[in-house]
Amino acid sequence: MAKRLKSTPKADGYRMPAEFEEQEQVFMLWPERNDNWRNGAKPAQKAFGDVAMAISQFEPVTMLASPGQYKNVLKRLPPEIRVIEMTSNDAWVRDCGPTFIKNDEGDLRAVDWEFNAWGGLVDGLYFPWDQDEMVAQKLCEVENVDSYKTKGFVLEGGAFHVDGEGTVLTTEMCLLSKGRNPHMTKTEIEDMLKEYLNAEKVIWVKDGIDPDETNGHIDDVACFVRPGEVACIWTEDENNPFYKVAHETYEFLLRQTDAKGRRLKVHKLDLPKEAVKYTGEEDIDYVEGTIPREAGEVCIASYMNFLIVNGGVVIPQYGDVNDELAIKQVQEMFPEREVVGVFTREIVYGGGNIHCITQQMPKRG
Amino acid sequence: MAKRLKSTPKADGYRMPAEFEEQEQVFMLWPERNDNWRNGAKPAQKAFGDVAMAISQFEPVTMLASPGQYKNVLKRLPPEIRVIEMTSNDAWVRDCGPTFIKNDEGDLRAVDWEFNAWGGLVDGLYFPWDQDEMVAQKLCEVENVDSYKTKGFVLEGGAFHVDGEGTVLTTEMCLLSKGRNPHMTKTEIEDMLKEYLNAEKVIWVKDGIDPDETNGHIDDVACFVRPGEVACIWTEDENNPFYKVAHETYEFLLRQTDAKGRRLKVHKLDLPKEAVKYTGEEDIDYVEGTIPREAGEVCIASYMNFLIVNGGVVIPQYGDVNDELAIKQVQEMFPEREVVGVFTREIVYGGGNIHCITQQMPKRG
Repeated sequence: MAKRLKSTPKADGYRMPAEFEEQEQVFMLWPERNDNWRNGAKPAQKAFGDVAMAISQFEPVTMLASPGQYKNVLKRLPPEIRVIEMTSNDAWVRDCGPTFIKNDEGDLRAVDWEFNAWGGLVDGLYFPWDQDEMVAQKLCEVENVDSYKTKGFVLEGGAFHVDGEGTVLTTEMCLLSKGRNPHMTKTEIEDMLKEYLNAEKVIWVKDGIDPDETNGHIDDVACFVRPGEVACIWTEDENNPFYKVAHETYEFLLRQTDAKGRRLKVHKLDLPKEAVKYTGEEDIDYVEGTIPREAGEVCIASYMNFLIVNGGVVIPQYGDVNDELAIKQVQEMFPEREVVGVFTREIVYGGGNIHCITQQMPKRG
Repeated sequence: MAKRLKSTPKADGYRMPAEFEEQEQVFMLWPERNDNWRNGAKPAQKAFGDVAMAISQFEPVTMLASPGQYKNVLKRLPPEIRVIEMTSNDAWVRDCGPTFIKNDEGDLRAVDWEFNAWGGLVDGLYFPWDQDEMVAQKLCEVENVDSYKTKGFVLEGGAFHVDGEGTVLTTEMCLLSKGRNPHMTKTEIEDMLKEYLNAEKVIWVKDGIDPDETNGHIDDVACFVRPGEVACIWTEDENNPFYKVAHETYEFLLRQTDAKGRRLKVHKLDLPKEAVKYTGEEDIDYVEGTIPREAGEVCIASYMNFLIVNGGVVIPQYGDVNDELAIKQVQEMFPEREVVGVFTREIVYGGGNIHCITQQMPKRG
């Protein structure tokens, strides 16, 4: 088996590359929970397939699928997608998967964060999460990548972004939440990020836009576009449910400097004009304790939840009047990349989007 | 996903390397069926682990394990064994796994034979076998190996041996059995072997020693030691249950020439002196249709079911007076390799031995 290392990435000279650095492949997990994905997960499976195909225009995609769905996945996906058996509790490989790190020789390792379904027994989103907890290690075995397990330290990949040059972007709402590491101070948590992502500075955004689901993951709010530049959600509509967070975060980021001392350039990325809401047609299995999906309830729809890939950016589309604007704005941020939109309303109904359902593995060497 | 090819290995210049050619790794499947492996499969798991460790002295081993057993396997095996999630119906990767083939450039592909649990609805050993049927393709996805599927042609890896130079060794008892390809003539079956293993000559041994289980797999009876040389089971005890097959096969092989026209040199490998029998202590779950395990019934114990690995040979030991003799005889056949015995009585109770529970992947390049 791949080694489980007792030291830390920083001690061993491994750092998390930024998403915009070169990648080897992208992992995804096939959705099938009927208590999360409406209508037997069939519409979500279609959307996940569309995302996989969009990414595979740029680089290889490996889809992880349960034994029960394996043949179905092979049949539904085009031949260029690799399909590997992997049992999970749901389909959020950004959060339960490994965070890959790299040293100056180009060797890969991974951080295997403790995963507790976004809050464990305090405010986690499902129980149990035992299979999700094993995804990172199983992937490391498949890819022969040694890993560091942060035993007792809970974190998800969607809770932070890095610029690859020493800066981490995260939110207080998530990392200081009661369901993750309540035994640790903010300083201790910051030290863990610095040690395991090999960073020098953590920029603490206050809030995310989904307090009830991921407790405010950064990947719906802001991200690095390149060193010294970030994107931030934006709206001028005071009635937009995310207006307050958008403005607070934008103003905050404008005042920040990164680990290299650069003042951040902040790009605005407009939110969808119309809030995406549950329609009342969500036919979802009942499970005690899961969050109900009431008609009219606002979903966490943000164009920010895109994935940067080799030569491209794959971004959510909602059938909203701002879809085109989002593509235009992202294209301006990444003039050297091709921006591809994928209609992912079904993924939002399940609680996330493109960034949440993908995990990039950097290029070795 | 790895490609599914429509042509044939012979047409594309791929041949099955002999087991004594250089290998990259060996695959195994973790046992857990309580209706096959006695006492909750725990003694068998111990024995499989011992086999894995013996092989890993010589080359890497990947253990395939069900989601339910995954953590347990990681815990029970030493860190050098790679563990990958894979669901199966039982633990015979020689038979349900891929047969790897190689071209002159050193590229690997695989043959994915149709698998029906050694006889399907005619005289198969369990039902269903749907998960076993997927093992070959799943492994090809993990290892990024393109494959040929012999749709409608049933075969198992334990049913044949090759010398890597155009010769196949098999049995009529198995390949002409009613449960596999009754719609095909012997010539048609021979043509399939030649086409998919890329061979010129098939040597048809008449019988194997387990008509009721695998219908007489060759890998309990004879194998290639090197080009032009085979090993054959042997006993001078007329009361040995396998006496007749041993003598018939030995006499038959002495008269054979291989694809290159060489007359075969035949090495004798003695059988255990005392037949291995079920003890009556087999606490096995009842499942309708499976073969009962009666106290006193003879198990298929043969030293022939060894595995050749890089620089070594891993052979079964039974606690029999002939254990040492078998090691000595195999050492004489392979003077350049280290011969390692593993106590595998528990594996025999489940219906096979070291060769049946392993599948080698040749070295690329």
